[in-house]
Order: sequence, then structure tokens, then C-alpha cells
Amino acid sequence: MKAIQENDLVLIIHKDKKYLKRVMPDKSFHGKGGVINFPDLIGMNFGIRYLQYDLYEPTMEDIIMYGLARETQIVFPKDSFFIPFKLNLKHGSRVFEAGTGSGALTYMFSHTVGPEGTVVSLEKEERHFRNAKKNIERFLPWKNVEMHNQDIMSFSGEAFDAAFIDVREPWIYLEKVRSFLKESGSVGMIVPTANQVSDILKEFHKGFGNVEVLEIMMRKYKTVAERVRPEDRMVAHTGYLLFGRKLTGGQPKAGNDDVESGETMYIESEE
Amino acid sequence: MKAIQENDLVLIIHKDKKYLKRVMPDKSFHGKGGVINFPDLIGMNFGIRYLQYDLYEPTMEDIIMYGLARETQIVFPKDSFFIPFKLNLKHGSRVFEAGTGSGALTYMFSHTVGPEGTVVSLEKEERHFRNAKKNIERFLPWKNVEMHNQDIMSFSGEAFDAAFIDVREPWIYLEKVRSFLKESGSVGMIVPTANQVSDILKEFHKGFGNVEVLEIMMRKYKTVAERVRPEDRMVAHTGYLLFGRKLTGGQPKAGNDDVESGETMYIESEE
Amino acid sequence: MKAIQENDLVLIIHKDKKYLKRVMPDKSFHGKGGVINFPDLIGMNFGIRYLQYDLYEPTMEDIIMYGLARETQIVFPKDSFFIPFKLNLKHGSRVFEAGTGSGALTYMFSHTVGPEGTVVSLEKEERHFRNAKKNIERFLPWKNVEMHNQDIMSFSGEAFDAAFIDVREPWIYLEKVRSFLKESGSVGMIVPTANQVSDILKEFHKGFGNVEVLEIMMRKYKTVAERVRPEDRMVAHTGYLLFGRKLTGGQPKAGNDDVESGETMYIESEE
Amino acid sequence: MKAIQENDLVLIIHKDKKYLKRVMPDKSFHGKGGVINFPDLIGMNFGIRYLQYDLYEPTMEDIIMYGLARETQIVFPKDSFFIPFKLNLKHGSRVFEAGTGSGALTYMFSHTVGPEGTVVSLEKEERHFRNAKKNIERFLPWKNVEMHNQDIMSFSGEAFDAAFIDVREPWIYLEKVRSFLKESGSVGMIVPTANQVSDILKEFHKGFGNVEVLEIMMRKYKTVAERVRPEDRMVAHTGYLLFGRKLTGGQPKAGNDDVESGETMYIESEE
Repeated sequence: MKAIQENDLVLIIHKDKKYLKRVMPDKSFHGKGGVINFPDLIGMNFGIRYLQYDLYEPTMEDIIMYGLARETQIVFPKDSFFIPFKLNLKHGSRVFEAGTGSGALTYMFSHTVGPEGTVVSLEKEERHFRNAKKNIERFLPWKNVEMHNQDIMSFSGEAFDAAFIDVREPWIYLEKVRSFLKESGSVGMIVPTANQVSDILKEFHKGFGNVEVLEIMMRKYKTVAERVRPEDRMVAHTGYLLFGRKLTGGQPKAGNDDVESGETMYIESEE
Repeated sequence: MKAIQENDLVLIIHKDKKYLKRVMPDKSFHGKGGVINFPDLIGMNFGIRYLQYDLYEPTMEDIIMYGLARETQIVFPKDSFFIPFKLNLKHGSRVFEAGTGSGALTYMFSHTVGPEGTVVSLEKEERHFRNAKKNIERFLPWKNVEMHNQDIMSFSGEAFDAAFIDVREPWIYLEKVRSFLKESGSVGMIVPTANQVSDILKEFHKGFGNVEVLEIMMRKYKTVAERVRPEDRMVAHTGYLLFGRKLTGGQPKAGNDDVESGETMYIESEE
Repeated sequence: MKAIQENDLVLIIHKDKKYLKRVMPDKSFHGKGGVINFPDLIGMNFGIRYLQYDLYEPTMEDIIMYGLARETQIVFPKDSFFIPFKLNLKHGSRVFEAGTGSGALTYMFSHTVGPEGTVVSLEKEERHFRNAKKNIERFLPWKNVEMHNQDIMSFSGEAFDAAFIDVREPWIYLEKVRSFLKESGSVGMIVPTANQVSDILKEFHKGFGNVEVLEIMMRKYKTVAERVRPEDRMVAHTGYLLFGRKLTGGQPKAGNDDVESGETMYIESEE
Repeated sequence: MKAIQENDLVLIIHKDKKYLKRVMPDKSFHGKGGVINFPDLIGMNFGIRYLQYDLYEPTMEDIIMYGLARETQIVFPKDSFFIPFKLNLKHGSRVFEAGTGSGALTYMFSHTVGPEGTVVSLEKEERHFRNAKKNIERFLPWKNVEMHNQDIMSFSGEAFDAAFIDVREPWIYLEKVRSFLKESGSVGMIVPTANQVSDILKEFHKGFGNVEVLEIMMRKYKTVAERVRPEDRMVAHTGYLLFGRKLTGGQPKAGNDDVESGETMYIESEE
């Protein structure tokens, strides 16, 4: 049983609208489904129909989408749920992030590496830094995130398992960020334009291998059994994702043009 | 410094081919890039060019793609990296899985919930159960997975934070699996056909709310700076994903037809 | 030189807004780019910058998108440009259409088969029939379209090269429409839901072969050289398209499940 | 009734394999569905089951896919069915094509403009020119295509309704091709890489307006009523398409970055 307590966050759904609210004494919520007096909720379970609302315990996705104060474009769940595992983050990993933005990806990194892991995140814009810091402090249950209002070039770090760069010109920082990584460590980037992908690829094959460029698209469907069909419109683009791994001693390669990585890859399982 | 040790797994890349191998004394690897005597690797770093190969420490993705012995279609990373966070799994969560298959998603669940979490996974086919068990034992660093060679209907569980059902007719088990979940808990399913989506939606609105149906598509790009372009071919389909949350006291709804969840949703941040 | 004449249609573009207008004496256009007195345009060329507007001769796409009065969901250019050729329509073909709607596809059929071809189009809703008739009469330069305010079952036709069915339950009419077709003739359908695709496929393999089901997706890009990237949002779905060909003497097949038509097809060129 | 005659082309389908063959006396076809003696087919109808084969009259798509001898990458039907109408080609239009390739798009242009239209197509590689010429002569029913083994810069043309450029560096030829076009005429291009899109956009806004960049994706589905689902794999990319219209007197624009053409466009129908 999950009972609602004072100061808990609650996700309130009415039809297709969602609201993330904190259960505060003396406060109420006025929506099209009626008036909720927050004190009345205390002691009730999450996961119930109340008046014309459905009340749920908020998920990480709800926090990201409706909780974080946004001062920048955030990395959306279709991407931010994929990136941590693509970077091979797990319980106890140490990850470096350049470009905290509003902290959406920072939040996911923190959850992925858990209380014994470490997230170090840099944001050079003071305003964004302050906003992200507040977001992280408000919504994370543990203290595994170190935030710095600092530029990448002035930072010195080492022994990170992985790094993610979310800035306008990531190619400038690749060599620097590479120096923070353990051998064989993963690096990722997100950029909105194909021009940036090209600029990154000019540098990425130096000191990194197993380079990948990809996009993730999510297509949502309507939820009526008799009329299964995609929604009319979808997000067509958030960003191109790039990934690679720190490599020592290799010659820079020109990249993969002739081969289709997904097609011709020979898979041989471990004996 | 990550030095290669005896019995470590190593990912060997030669051009567009990848091999996952264990570093065993007295063994060698014969590929188009030359012969690797495994004892020679011991003490070298991961993340190096060696002969004509790139050698990396394997990631979770490498384990899933090249390590797990497959007796069934696996849930691929584009989906299995998304599902755990969509189910709101985090450090310490308890998750129930019906349909272990070859254990790819089980493996990701285990990593997501970490050493203090629990994964309970059921597989009724004995052959698949044995194979998955071997996969899990071989590749996971901790013991947070309970595996049962058992049908869902004969299982009794409770207080799971989330559940995932990967069987041919998931709608049969929805009510049962609902009983295992905490209030407000998340459930997910994956099915290959739209007919199954329809069959699920007929039952899903009973006792669950916030229902979503979606697909994830990944489009890979070639990695040449001067020729940024998608690969010629891509995976067009693995499965439709469905998600919902345990809801008590609501009337079954007919589903969401008129509204576009992504379009009209009103976002109000927490004060 | 294409000079604008009285009563010509003109496409007026101002930034991202488009207007299709007829050049009428004594009329003017008031927009954010200034006031156009239509008589002033007469004798000027199409394809010019005028005040803050760009003026073009309207294309078939412009007529469909901004000219046709809509009483129904229209078949959009991404689909209506594909369908005529997929049905193998060409100069002089005879095509049958069931479900005129607002006439967008009728308009494309008329252009594809040209002045020596024939389009016979049925619409049972009188209101839609009248609207489509007005659209066709206003925008087509020749008289190759026969329109009937009639149901399919009450119609008798023969020797059509191809047919297209755009109604809610096309499976009901497949046998009837088949009787209108020449041997080897093509039939197509568009439906919004996967349930309808399933219902069609139950009947489609009877008397038709070479069955195909597909969707067309169009992804638009921003047009800035330094920032090549898809637009943020796109149309995710209009309809599923189905195509087949009239076949005599075959046994109904169960459909194509195991094979990937695009994958395993052996291509042998004509000697 | 469409009876098969000597020298007709016939499409032979056996399971998922298709063969385009000419019905020649003294010839036979040996496939997995049995031996077809071509003289036996004469007088039979198209659109029949014969032995284990389905025999159809070939469509334009069949000719393009299985008939044209290929010396270059062809423009596939998903694109070549869309391009002619996007260029506003219709009965009697005059279209200029630079880069005949193997003639697939030339073939579609010829069918779109019909016997009273004109297609002028240039190919500078002599080998491709000869191959395309043979393709066009073999498969087209009328003579509306003029082919030249010539470079664009050495050609002089005028009063074309539309032009399409399918060469490696189309931006070099934009100004020249513009001079061939009527006022308000349409131009299109296809290129495989985003780098080329960027290079085109640098020049395209000079002398052209209403610039669009887009891709067309086709997703095929399996055809079993009980298992409606996309095929496992699809073509992920053929090329980016660019379109614009000849504009006189406008100032070159920087392109469309802020607006979403599909989103914010105000539609006003003609009065």
C-alpha cells in the first residue's frame, strides 16, 4: 500500500491533461474534474480514481516532463532513457556530463548509477546552472551528483567510465573529454543538425573507435481496441545521437561508408 | 587503467564484425585481422588497437547482442534500454517479468534495479528457462534475479513496483499480474502484431489507467563526415510496446481516440 | 512568359503562410505583407516577388491543399501522388473510384489518365457528392470525370483498368469491385486503422493476388544550409494503403507471413 | 479480356519471387513452380494462376523494378511516383532532366506528361546514356523523350515547365537550369547525403522560392489478416528530395529555420 503523505508529489490526470503537484496543507487544486483539497488526500492510496481524476505516484518520466523547471530544451525520455545504457552506465559507475542544461539527463544518470555511483555535471551558463541545481536538489533522493558552474576546458577529471557532451560545438571538447575517460570508456553526444554531426565526425575518429550515429523515433498509438492506429502527429526530430569508445593506438579512420553495420555484422557468441 | 585479465570477456572488432570472446589460457582467436593468442592479451589495456583489431571491454549492449545464447527472439536494445525506465525501475525496485525468453530484458532489469533490487522472472518452457538461467548466471555480477520455470497463473506474488509481460497472449494474464503489483505500479508488454495490441486494449482499461501504446524506431547513420546519411536499410519493426498503471476505483474507459496525448497535454509544473 | 490574367488562380506566399486566390477585378488581398489590388497583377508574370509576397502559378498540390473545399478528410499528396502510379494509371486509363470524398484523389486520377482517359467516381453521401462535384468542375481543365451520387452495390461497370476504394468498410465491396475490373487490373484501398487492414486481408486474398500493405511517411526538413535538420514535428499517420491485382483461378492464400517481400525477392531482368 | 500475345511482357510470380519475361516463341521459363512453354501462354488471359505461378500484365512499377537494365542506382518508386506530381507535371508538360542514369525517372516523366508532352534528358556518361536509351526505347509506348549524351553546361533550353537534377553536385547547375525554366516553374533534386543538402541550400535560395527539403519513407506490412505487422526490415534511406520554384525579383533568403511549414501554415481557400 502506498499512502499519500504530506509533501508527496502526486500526478493528477484528467482526460488527456496531466498535472504534477505537491500535497501541501492549506492548498487545493482546481481543475475541470473538480476541486481537490490536498489535506483530504493524505492517507489515501496512490493509484486511485478520485473525483474525476486519476492520482498516481509520479514516475521518473513524470518528474522529467512535468517537474523539472526548464530553461533549456531538455533531452526527452525517448533519448534520455536510451543514452545511459548506451553509455554502459550501471550501479556504481562514474559519469561526466558537459552541458547540464535543465538537468533532465543528469537526473537519469543519477538514477542509473545509483547511490554508489557519481555524476559530475558542468554547466557554464550561471542561470542554467542555478536552475538545474534546484531541479536536481528537489527531485533526487540521494546525493550522487556534483554540479559545477564551469567550462569544460577549465575542468580536470579522470577515471570516468563514460561521458556525455551536450553543447553546441562538442567537437572542440572531444580531446579534452577523452582525457577524463578510462581506457575503453564510452562517450556520447546529442546535436540537432546534420552539419554538427559532420563536424563531430571530422574529429571523432581521432582517439575514439566503434563510432555510431543514430536517431531514436517514437511513434505513439491511440488506445482504442477497435481502432488501433498511430496518432496523427509525432515528434519528428529531437537530435542526432553519436557514440564512440576511447581507443588508444589506432590510426584515425575515415569512417564507415561502404558497410551497413546492422547488415553485415558477423555475430559470434562467446564460447 | 583497465587491464585485461584471465577469464575476462573482450570485444574484438575487425572492420564491421564484432566478436565477444573470453580470454582463456591456451586459446587463440583466428580472424581476418590476424591471430590473437589470448595469453598475450593479459595485462594489456582494454581500448586498444592490437594487430588489426580494436579490443574493448564489453558493454551491456555487447553482452546482450553477442553474449547471450538465444533460443528465442530477444528484446533488442532500442526497446530493452527504454522499457526499464518507462516502468520507473530504479535502484532497489522489485520487478516481475513473465516470459524470460533468452533473458535479454531480465539482464537489463537486473542492472537497473541493482544489487538491492529484485527481479522475479517466470518462463514456462523448460528449455528456454534453462538457457536463460545459464545466460543470467554467466553474465550478471550479482544475485538479484530469481528465476522460475513456471506459468504465471500458478505463481503468487505481491508488492512488485512494476511488471513486464512478454508472452503471446498477455491479455489473459493482466488481471493476475495486476494482483502482484503495488498500488500505482507500472505494467508493460511487448507484442509483434496490431491484432494483439487490439486484444490487449480490450482488457487493459479494466483496472489500469494512463494506457500508452508506442513503437520505438532506431535509424542508424553512416559515420563519414563528408557523407552524412542514414544507412540504406533499418529494422522496421520489433514490437509494439504497451504501458499502463494499476488503478483502483476507476470505471473502465473506452480508450483514447479523439485526443492526441502528445498534442493537447497541458503541462503544469510543480510549485 | 506566364502572365497573370483575369480569373487566374494565384498562389500568394508570405513567410510560412500560403493563400490561393482568384484574380478578380474590383477585389483585393489584405495580408501582413501589404495590400494587393488584383487588377494591378494582370499582365505581370507568375513567379515574382511583389510587395512582401511571392506569387506563383498554383500547382496541383496547391489546388489540393488550398483550393478544394473540404467536407471530408482528404487523401494528402504524400499518398495521392503515389496511388495513381501504384495502380498503374497512365494516359488513357479507365479508373473506378468508390468514395469520392472531397475529390482530392479524383483530381489526381483525372490528371494522371489525361483527356483520353476516364475516371468514374461514386459518392453516396449527397452533401459530399455536391461538394466534390463543385471542386472537380472548378479546378479541372477537361471533362474526363463521371461522378455519381450512388452506392457501389447499385453500380454496374466493366473493363476498368484499376479501382480505388476509400470507404469505411471496403471489404464488403471487394467482390463487386472485382467484377468491374479487367483481368490483371489493380485495386487499392486506404484505411486509417490496423483493424480495418485485418478485415480487408480476410477477404482480399479471394480473387486478388500480389497483395501489398504499406504506409508512406514524409519527413520534412528545415531549409537553412547551416542547420540541416528535420522539422520538429511531422504527420505520423494518414492511412494504411492496400494494393492487389485481379487474379483468376488461384486458390485463396493465407497471406505472406514468413517472407519479407522486399528482402528475398529474386529479381531477374527481361531478356 | 486481356489475352497474352507473342512478344508481350509477362510478370511471373512464384511465392515471393518475381520474374519479368517476354513471351517468345521457342522459349520457356524454368522455375520452382514448373516449366512454362511460352507458346502455351498465347491467347490465355493475364491475371491467372498457371501451374504454380501467377501471371500478370506488368505495371510501370514492374518495368522499373525488373525490366530496366541498371547501370546506376535508380530512383525507386517511393520517390519516382512522387516526384512527377510534386514538379506539377501533367498531360502535355515539358520537363528537363539532368542525369538520366538508368532512366527510371525518365520513364515515369514520360508517362506523366503523355504523348503530347516532352521529356528532355541529359546524361554525360556515354555508357549510362546508351543503357538508358535502350531502356527507354524498349519499354515506352510513345516517343516523347529526347535523350542527349551531353553535359548540362553545354545545353541550351527554354520554356520548360519543370526540371529535375540528379547529379552529384546539383548546386553547380542551379543557375543554368533556372534559365531553362518558365517563370514560376518547378525544380527538384535528389541527393543521398545531408552534406549535399547543405551545399544545395547555400545556392538554392538565389532565384528560387518556396524551397522544400523532405524524405519519403515506405514501410511495408505483412499480409496475414491475423498478424498485421510491419515487415522486419525496411529501406531506411534512398535520398533527400529538394524542391523549389523559379522566382524573379526576390532577395535571397536565409531559409526557413524558425517556422514549421507544416504547422503554422495558414490555409485560406479560394473564394
